[in-house]
Amino acid sequence: MGAAAEIPHPFDPLTLDEIEIAISTVKKAHGEVRFNVVALQEPRKAEMTAWLENPETAPRPKRIADVVVIAPGGKVYDGLVTLDEPKIISWVEAVGEQPIITMEELQFVEHICRKDPKVIEQCVISGIKEEDMDKVYCDPWTIGYDERFGSGVRLQQALMYYRPELDNCQYQYPLDFCPIFDADKKEIIAIDIPKVRRPLSKAAAVDYHPAAVEARGGYRNDLKPINITQPEGVSFNLKGREIEWQNWKFHIGFSYREGIVLNNITYNDKGTVRPIFYRLSLAEMVVPYGNPEHPHQRKHALDQGEYGAGYMANSLSLGCDCKGSIHYLDAHFPTQAGGLRTIKNAICIHEEDAGILFKHTDFRDDSVIVTRGRKLIVQQIFTAANYEYVVAWVFHQDGTIQPEIKLTGILNTYSMLPDEDTHGWGTQVFPSVNAHNHQHLFCLRIDANVDGPNNTVYLSDAMPSDAPVGSPENFYGNAFYNRRTKLSTTGEAMTDYDSKTSRTWEICNPNKLNPYSKKPVSYKLVSREALTMLPKPGSLVWKRAAFARHAVHVTPYADDQLWPAGRHVPQTSGEPSKGITEWIGDGSASIDNKDIVLWHTFGVTHFPSPEDFPVMPAEPMMLLLRPRNFFAGNPVMDVPPSYASTPSQVQAGKGAWEAADGMSKLAFEDRETNGHVTKVEGEGGSCCGTSSGVNGTNGVNGH
Amino acid sequence: MGAAAEIPHPFDPLTLDEIEIAISTVKKAHGEVRFNVVALQEPRKAEMTAWLENPETAPRPKRIADVVVIAPGGKVYDGLVTLDEPKIISWVEAVGEQPIITMEELQFVEHICRKDPKVIEQCVISGIKEEDMDKVYCDPWTIGYDERFGSGVRLQQALMYYRPELDNCQYQYPLDFCPIFDADKKEIIAIDIPKVRRPLSKAAAVDYHPAAVEARGGYRNDLKPINITQPEGVSFNLKGREIEWQNWKFHIGFSYREGIVLNNITYNDKGTVRPIFYRLSLAEMVVPYGNPEHPHQRKHALDQGEYGAGYMANSLSLGCDCKGSIHYLDAHFPTQAGGLRTIKNAICIHEEDAGILFKHTDFRDDSVIVTRGRKLIVQQIFTAANYEYVVAWVFHQDGTIQPEIKLTGILNTYSMLPDEDTHGWGTQVFPSVNAHNHQHLFCLRIDANVDGPNNTVYLSDAMPSDAPVGSPENFYGNAFYNRRTKLSTTGEAMTDYDSKTSRTWEICNPNKLNPYSKKPVSYKLVSREALTMLPKPGSLVWKRAAFARHAVHVTPYADDQLWPAGRHVPQTSGEPSKGITEWIGDGSASIDNKDIVLWHTFGVTHFPSPEDFPVMPAEPMMLLLRPRNFFAGNPVMDVPPSYASTPSQVQAGKGAWEAADGMSKLAFEDRETNGHVTKVEGEGGSCCGTSSGVNGTNGVNGH
Repeated sequence: MGAAAEIPHPFDPLTLDEIEIAISTVKKAHGEVRFNVVALQEPRKAEMTAWLENPETAPRPKRIADVVVIAPGGKVYDGLVTLDEPKIISWVEAVGEQPIITMEELQFVEHICRKDPKVIEQCVISGIKEEDMDKVYCDPWTIGYDERFGSGVRLQQALMYYRPELDNCQYQYPLDFCPIFDADKKEIIAIDIPKVRRPLSKAAAVDYHPAAVEARGGYRNDLKPINITQPEGVSFNLKGREIEWQNWKFHIGFSYREGIVLNNITYNDKGTVRPIFYRLSLAEMVVPYGNPEHPHQRKHALDQGEYGAGYMANSLSLGCDCKGSIHYLDAHFPTQAGGLRTIKNAICIHEEDAGILFKHTDFRDDSVIVTRGRKLIVQQIFTAANYEYVVAWVFHQDGTIQPEIKLTGILNTYSMLPDEDTHGWGTQVFPSVNAHNHQHLFCLRIDANVDGPNNTVYLSDAMPSDAPVGSPENFYGNAFYNRRTKLSTTGEAMTDYDSKTSRTWEICNPNKLNPYSKKPVSYKLVSREALTMLPKPGSLVWKRAAFARHAVHVTPYADDQLWPAGRHVPQTSGEPSKGITEWIGDGSASIDNKDIVLWHTFGVTHFPSPEDFPVMPAEPMMLLLRPRNFFAGNPVMDVPPSYASTPSQVQAGKGAWEAADGMSKLAFEDRETNGHVTKVEGEGGSCCGTSSGVNGTNGVNGH
Repeated sequence: MGAAAEIPHPFDPLTLDEIEIAISTVKKAHGEVRFNVVALQEPRKAEMTAWLENPETAPRPKRIADVVVIAPGGKVYDGLVTLDEPKIISWVEAVGEQPIITMEELQFVEHICRKDPKVIEQCVISGIKEEDMDKVYCDPWTIGYDERFGSGVRLQQALMYYRPELDNCQYQYPLDFCPIFDADKKEIIAIDIPKVRRPLSKAAAVDYHPAAVEARGGYRNDLKPINITQPEGVSFNLKGREIEWQNWKFHIGFSYREGIVLNNITYNDKGTVRPIFYRLSLAEMVVPYGNPEHPHQRKHALDQGEYGAGYMANSLSLGCDCKGSIHYLDAHFPTQAGGLRTIKNAICIHEEDAGILFKHTDFRDDSVIVTRGRKLIVQQIFTAANYEYVVAWVFHQDGTIQPEIKLTGILNTYSMLPDEDTHGWGTQVFPSVNAHNHQHLFCLRIDANVDGPNNTVYLSDAMPSDAPVGSPENFYGNAFYNRRTKLSTTGEAMTDYDSKTSRTWEICNPNKLNPYSKKPVSYKLVSREALTMLPKPGSLVWKRAAFARHAVHVTPYADDQLWPAGRHVPQTSGEPSKGITEWIGDGSASIDNKDIVLWHTFGVTHFPSPEDFPVMPAEPMMLLLRPRNFFAGNPVMDVPPSYASTPSQVQAGKGAWEAADGMSKLAFEDRETNGHVTKVEGEGGSCCGTSSGVNGTNGVNGH
């Protein structure tokens, strides 16, 4: 790929060569180990910032590999390897910790289960023939935390399913027991068996694959194609992994853990390159399920810390996920044995039309300007067993960044007796299929750099005036204002969303004021998707996923404080809670006019319904990071309009600004479709008719 | 137009012929009057429903014109005219009420102001030369309510501006005084003059028109075109004003008041046509401004009731507002003199690609299905003086309806002394330009018909279990459930949004249960845009715009209860409050298993910032009406996938499902752009590469 061919940028993920160097260096020193992680140790911010400011004179940050291995006997080591003169510079045992689970480890469990006598016994009890064990599947999850086993042994829980036909959606035939797999012994060490047994469902299959759809009468044939083309190519410029588009410039990284990582995001404001964010990523997530019956409490995947949004990334060359002119970047990882693994097209980059960017019509004479917007989308999709997460970073021309997540894929399901009472903890979405209540809680990590590293976060609330109706200050009762509350310490910054005040969070640079409003330049976090983590305070999830206790936490920047549930997440007990609670400590640290990181937890609570089965129509959620008092004026007035006429042009009957975008004319060609005709007389080849009914009313102007 | 050529559907707006018949009938009886409204009186629901069920046998509802006129002397009359044998069937004086303001009335005021000596005097005081009065403009607003004048006299307040150049954005030169215009006398009867005078700003103009942009260095030239084409035409079928698309069918009406009105919305569920909504519209709105200083409290436009989202509709042939294959419908209205006025292309209808509809990958073998979605958009744009509102009704294939509003246009502005203290009621967005805090509160009217007329609304809240952590019922503390609260009476139904419980409202049909979940079929209102009306209880706005007191009200259906701020909105005092409060009365009426209407108020609070000036980048907000427990399964499995491969195909190395949508292949053609190459070897002409790194890990399967 283009990127790999050049000298890597300090923010670039490790190249295949670099991964190989790290692996061979470790093997030389420590022999045969299993490689769970060989990834970039991100450059120390101080060094990196110095280099970004003076790439010619400042030393270029060294390339260092962050390595996690499992040695024979299950010992876990964290290592650092310099890559220029290959050398292990740090090697520490992570005692009682379990590193991230790799795809290979996930692949393995099913094959053990099929051969395990006790699992076979349970399958037979469920009504599966012994010779049909090849039709038994499992989705192996880390055990999360189970006090019976603790953290010392590397475990996975096997969520069991039956697939009578190879192509069936397996989630319609869940089994009611749960084997526990020991990754070191490579054997099943226990099986959780419910008191109430639920035999295998006998329901006829409902599938979404083409043959099944054909058997049900076939695909609908009334969708005409929509073609989206960019005959002149794309509007962005990609050098290695640095992209420039519509005044934006940033670096696109990719981590095994977080997936897409965006660094050094700047906006060229009329020639001044202004920093906004040093780093943006989806840093962690947790998906707690709401069924209290053992062992379902273990279903609360911290998917990024436990499996990795990078490791689980889809290859976008399988399945055409975008339309138009798409650019791709690959991802490179180690295999456990020390080989190399590439996910082809792990990231896609493309533009989309963004609808109306701005419009105004003067009601007097219908003089009008309308300008269409464009957006840039940097996207990945990862598959966490049953679920698909489509993660898109959407950049708008007006300085807005819109992180967007779409949920699709398949519900995690559990077996139930025909019409068994779910006690409100789940929904029967298909005969004998119980889909449990769950939440998807995501943690957005915002390493702020709004016009410089020193920023302050304010709560912004919409408040009615305190003065009563009838008082001189508020006689008619209509007064309202924007109440801004400074968050001075990490303790004060533990804040929640309040829809009653349309709360937002302003990341300000108190050292720089807007020339007109005299307010500090800021980026505002607008999130209507903030929600309450429903597992109670003191619950297992609350202890393990502390980042989800509040909508917002703010911490002073520190290198390596990247993942708010901790570095090694599988089988953490939450006692003490790892990650963000450690960093916040007693809450006294100042975050006022400092280099800060804002952590925002958002998501959705999902009470399943039959519409979601056997595969879910995508459900979107989005946030906005919007410039407020950042620019001195609308920054997109120089985007060519698709149509513009001024009052003087209307008076003179002169031609209007030609559509900058030829395609807009399409809308006004004569056409006949479905018996419905729209005919508009063109004006000098422009796309727009001359006669407007409203003009008809302008006759009164003269009177 | 196609529609007008046929016998009108009972839901169709009045045709030009019908408007003429109504006008001539009224003129014959009452001589010269000013016509403010000549519109369809919507068919009585009982008659209409009977006819919809049996169009052959049931009587076709009669066409009746709803007429509002102002007679000489300012007397207002409400009339009804049957159109088959033209006849006035009702004629009632509306005593002390003021009908909607027409565009003509708005056009008129400016020309009076320019000639009025007192206005000229104030302009001179502000620093405008007497000979420059032709450069003085005003945005006339209804006075709202001003206790000094009451409701008997028809008044407008003139928000004054100066435009040194004809093509200037006038909102950058606001004047500090406010003339009051009497529409009957056609003269200025008073001028509100502030204690502190604010002379005309001397700031150099900032404009967004092409000449101004060229003078600042011209338009950016780095945007490559995105072409969106539908070579085979559109996927919808439009007969008259009835549209069919992807199992949806509904009628597209248009009212002077609400703009787009959607009727009889049904979804064809595998051959069964299921009603969902009888009528959907944006029924009212209010834009309160937060500056308590007199006379700014009068700035709280109820734009639909006071001016009409139909009357203010943009002609979409001026300015190319959409891309692709667009269909249009015109709007026809009377002029005040009894002439005819047509807004060409007042409604646009088109399809857009909707991104991924669903996707799932099996992590074992990368067998995958990905299907792209499509949406249908029925849209209008209206200009309320400075602001534009883009109102879109977005239909999704999965049964979701997404009402969406984009705000653009220009801020309402007031003059300020250089760097005068705004006291937090506004922001200086440009030198001497104060943009006051304001809210945009919209009221969505949902006439529910979910599998039949008798529906019940439930509050739906996401709640943790009451059982404490450690208790047998909730040992690990992870239990949570969906608390549903029935709203039995109009009083109980006055409810607000609660982000802490991710509250939604379920419109259920309690008489029909989902076959699997056994829950009532329902449509769920998902609105994260609900907000608090900031003017206080007892305030003028609170009294006049009672619909905005709560996020949701529910009323039993009654003919003609369409507009929640009342039929005649200009100059209502709010004492008593009109519309929804009258209908709710003592709150005792049952709404349980009845034909009901749900009113939802949502919107945005806007604290302006310089980015918004001189023209605002569009700010979107959207709601969802989602089927829950309505379908027995995912209703879009028969949408052709763009790519699908099954485990058996992967095992056999057989070709996958061909992309249904040829354009998706584009993404995988070889291409070279900006020096960055992506090359993927095609597979039998399919768009998708064969090699996925993840496959590399599957080797372990065999072991």
